[in-house]
Amino acid sequence: MARRVAIVGAGVSGLASVKCCLEEGLEPTCFERSHDLGGLWRFTEHVEEGRASLYKSVVSNSSKEMSCYSDFPFPEDYPNYVPNSQFLEYLKMYANRFNLLKCIQFKTKVCSITKCPDFPVSGQWEVVTLCEGKHESAIFDAVMVCTGFLTNPYLPLDSFPGINAFKGQYFHSRQYKHPDIFKDKRVLVVGMGNSGTDIAVEASHLAKKVFLSTTGGAWVVSRVFDSGYPWDMVVTTRFQNLLRNSLPTPVVTWLMARKMDSRFSHANYGLIPKDRTQLKEFVLNDELPGRIITGKVLIRPSIKEVKENSVIFNNTPKEEPIDIIVFATGYTFAFPFLDESVVKVEDGQASLYKYIFPAHLQKPTLAVIGLIKPLGSMIPTGETQARWAVRVLKGVNKLPPPSVMIEEVNARKENKPSWFGLCYCKALQTDYIPYIDELLTYINAKPNLFSLLLTDPRLALTVFFGPCSPYQFRLTGPGKWEGARNAIMTQWDRTLKVTKSRIVQESPSPFESLLKLFSFLALLIAVFLIFL
Amino acid sequence: MARRVAIVGAGVSGLASVKCCLEEGLEPTCFERSHDLGGLWRFTEHVEEGRASLYKSVVSNSSKEMSCYSDFPFPEDYPNYVPNSQFLEYLKMYANRFNLLKCIQFKTKVCSITKCPDFPVSGQWEVVTLCEGKHESAIFDAVMVCTGFLTNPYLPLDSFPGINAFKGQYFHSRQYKHPDIFKDKRVLVVGMGNSGTDIAVEASHLAKKVFLSTTGGAWVVSRVFDSGYPWDMVVTTRFQNLLRNSLPTPVVTWLMARKMDSRFSHANYGLIPKDRTQLKEFVLNDELPGRIITGKVLIRPSIKEVKENSVIFNNTPKEEPIDIIVFATGYTFAFPFLDESVVKVEDGQASLYKYIFPAHLQKPTLAVIGLIKPLGSMIPTGETQARWAVRVLKGVNKLPPPSVMIEEVNARKENKPSWFGLCYCKALQTDYIPYIDELLTYINAKPNLFSLLLTDPRLALTVFFGPCSPYQFRLTGPGKWEGARNAIMTQWDRTLKVTKSRIVQESPSPFESLLKLFSFLALLIAVFLIFL
Repeated sequence: MARRVAIVGAGVSGLASVKCCLEEGLEPTCFERSHDLGGLWRFTEHVEEGRASLYKSVVSNSSKEMSCYSDFPFPEDYPNYVPNSQFLEYLKMYANRFNLLKCIQFKTKVCSITKCPDFPVSGQWEVVTLCEGKHESAIFDAVMVCTGFLTNPYLPLDSFPGINAFKGQYFHSRQYKHPDIFKDKRVLVVGMGNSGTDIAVEASHLAKKVFLSTTGGAWVVSRVFDSGYPWDMVVTTRFQNLLRNSLPTPVVTWLMARKMDSRFSHANYGLIPKDRTQLKEFVLNDELPGRIITGKVLIRPSIKEVKENSVIFNNTPKEEPIDIIVFATGYTFAFPFLDESVVKVEDGQASLYKYIFPAHLQKPTLAVIGLIKPLGSMIPTGETQARWAVRVLKGVNKLPPPSVMIEEVNARKENKPSWFGLCYCKALQTDYIPYIDELLTYINAKPNLFSLLLTDPRLALTVFFGPCSPYQFRLTGPGKWEGARNAIMTQWDRTLKVTKSRIVQESPSPFESLLKLFSFLALLIAVFLIFL
Repeated sequence: MARRVAIVGAGVSGLASVKCCLEEGLEPTCFERSHDLGGLWRFTEHVEEGRASLYKSVVSNSSKEMSCYSDFPFPEDYPNYVPNSQFLEYLKMYANRFNLLKCIQFKTKVCSITKCPDFPVSGQWEVVTLCEGKHESAIFDAVMVCTGFLTNPYLPLDSFPGINAFKGQYFHSRQYKHPDIFKDKRVLVVGMGNSGTDIAVEASHLAKKVFLSTTGGAWVVSRVFDSGYPWDMVVTTRFQNLLRNSLPTPVVTWLMARKMDSRFSHANYGLIPKDRTQLKEFVLNDELPGRIITGKVLIRPSIKEVKENSVIFNNTPKEEPIDIIVFATGYTFAFPFLDESVVKVEDGQASLYKYIFPAHLQKPTLAVIGLIKPLGSMIPTGETQARWAVRVLKGVNKLPPPSVMIEEVNARKENKPSWFGLCYCKALQTDYIPYIDELLTYINAKPNLFSLLLTDPRLALTVFFGPCSPYQFRLTGPGKWEGARNAIMTQWDRTLKVTKSRIVQESPSPFESLLKLFSFLALLIAVFLIFL
């Protein structure tokens, strides 16, 4: 049975892993390369090697009620989408509240993690670290890798003929910090993920001209969703999820495209995804359509050729003068401290059972946490992964035999289309609620809706029809949180409170009163007729 | 009959007035205080006395197809909402195209306009101007005043108790040029018109904290309207206008509130208008809801007290530290060069017949152009006013006797509620299409939909159901433009062309094909059954 656990990285998943270890009575040691916790959420003015890099304006993509740790809601006065500096504050509160700091060794880089000679029996690992120039080595019973997937920029310069002749400035979006550099420049942003779109929009406030070049296009979703509610609180419900996954894939795809086009036609704005049968990650941006319609951001297809001071796009022969190119071409991930025989990364995928455990290891004593892109928030996903993983490392929960795990991993790699629900095109993407429910089932923490309906129908209905907020994962089982029910029942109050900061006494319009009166009369007549 | 016409101001209305005078064979002399044309649309880094002042980022509030001169569409490649620098370019193209520059005297301030001693007979005016230190005087047969209503800031400091003790910086929104001044400051913007909202949103990209204080609230409309079409092309149609004005006021008000709330609930965002029975100007802003939900702009009610370094709002006892206050409290207007006996301004209104002619003058030889706030674009409104006014000044069209005009002006001031259509609460506000149609009727230029339906049904339907674009005002009558029909039929092409800059080959989804097949089969069966 594992006792000593090495955790690599003190970001959102690392912190959750430390907490889960402590709760299960294990001894976690978390190695953090930098001098502070927070991982990607800690903004610095300069890019640090081996750590994800934020730009100054980053705001969370999922709302505060949907992206908190399941037993630790955001403070009430936090905005619904949390700017990065407040997000970091929150992580620090979490670390303090659960006393995690004592387990973290800062400024300590993990150099290598190798199997001990007796690994087939002991499952132990030798972890070599580097701290202030000094190498150290220690033996651990288990390892949790929480380094994320946003550290290694992907910059396929070969795909841009002529880039070497370009005399302007170019860099990967990872290098981007502030929009000032774009002042009065002609800017081209390549790639329409969340970063690329954010950067193009920000640049458009200062630049002379901004092009956003996208080959595949994307669905652009507003944080301000239906009636102004946060998008994920509307979309991520068990009810909608059930509906989505019960309908044939073409119907769901069609319905989703209609929904996506309801605010603005993606075709008319030049953004329409090339392949609409498979779901790519959404781009979350409230400003892009407004910037396009005012001519501040110009959408273009892929690049045909880069010249000394200009770029030619694939739809027009005209050269566009360009001063700066930003490649928002995404990231790859790697585990430089692990041997390929432990985890091999191929085509942006690692052979991990349930996105966590290397499928072929003789002993399940290594877990990768947070290497997944659910259509939902990362924090509760990583946290739930950690809750299960720690119980596997501890030996309370068992994994199936390697052959079964390998088969499942291979099936996922093939990405066979299912006939129902949405179809995900990218590695690491998965459906949020079913994935978490599966992990919760393993640790007996999945809320049982049927028994809940009998004992607490109000809660049951809120859990089913309301936002699938992380508190649901703490209603029952190990790690049950007494505050969970209350947190669920008050999630909308906290959401509305922060924006409803000016209240006007409602004076019902005469028309509305009349409508109500008519409805009441109609009801009376109906009742009268029925009982006649 | 008037021959020599003095025109005060070379902004959008002044330019239209010059052109109309030339077309009617009059001799216009346009006096422009500054060194260039464009009026409010010419951005300068410093505020100039007596001229409206823009901030750097201003973009037109109505779309290019709806806010052009009726016989001069914007260039095809202009964005749908035009940034101020391009707007100025367009005005210059207009002046060049119609050869207006020769009639404009720049750097010439109008000091006074007084009735000539024989005014009751001649209707003439003495115009005294100041150019490079030299006063000049000249006699004109008629005068057109085109100075607008955005030059005199309204700053009611008395309404903010304690403002004199405030140690931070404060200024009227007219002084605002660039957001840089807000960097890392705690900013309070007072007033939620278009400027106030724009400034708060812009500040929120750099400031430490931004409050937007509003007493009355406002409906916030997106430039990106239904399905992404420009708001005014969707809303400003003859069909919708007829519908609105046929329904009882409470029903229209209720329907409008529902529509306004469809993107986001104004109550939940703290923006809900205090008085929803009367229509205030909309605020046009695409970014505000997104800034509120991310906590970057905080909405607050009115100010209770200003302290040395902070402000107390009316809903909480908590003091909020503030470094800069921007008063976006609007404008008043005045005619310093005219005697009160000619035009008197009271309660933000002037006693002008049809918002143009002083009602009590013995001779109708003075017109005020562009002193109106239609729920639509200013350019075609001012232009249509000028078309009629010039024909009155020339003597082709007659005004009713002063008594009739005075009665009508007084009735408008009382602002009696009508029982149908929308209800406008503010001085100078009026319904766009009916107002313009009335002016067009006077000059026999109103398109006759019934006869159009017989001669050119496609055009008639487009005119009735499509956007009421200014080209419609040039289909017939004096000033008819041969290009009008074509401009109307291609207005959507020009709108879509600029944003549809990346086109993806549609591969119809199997589901859609299936749907179509089923529909076709159903149709076949129906036909079969009918003819059986």
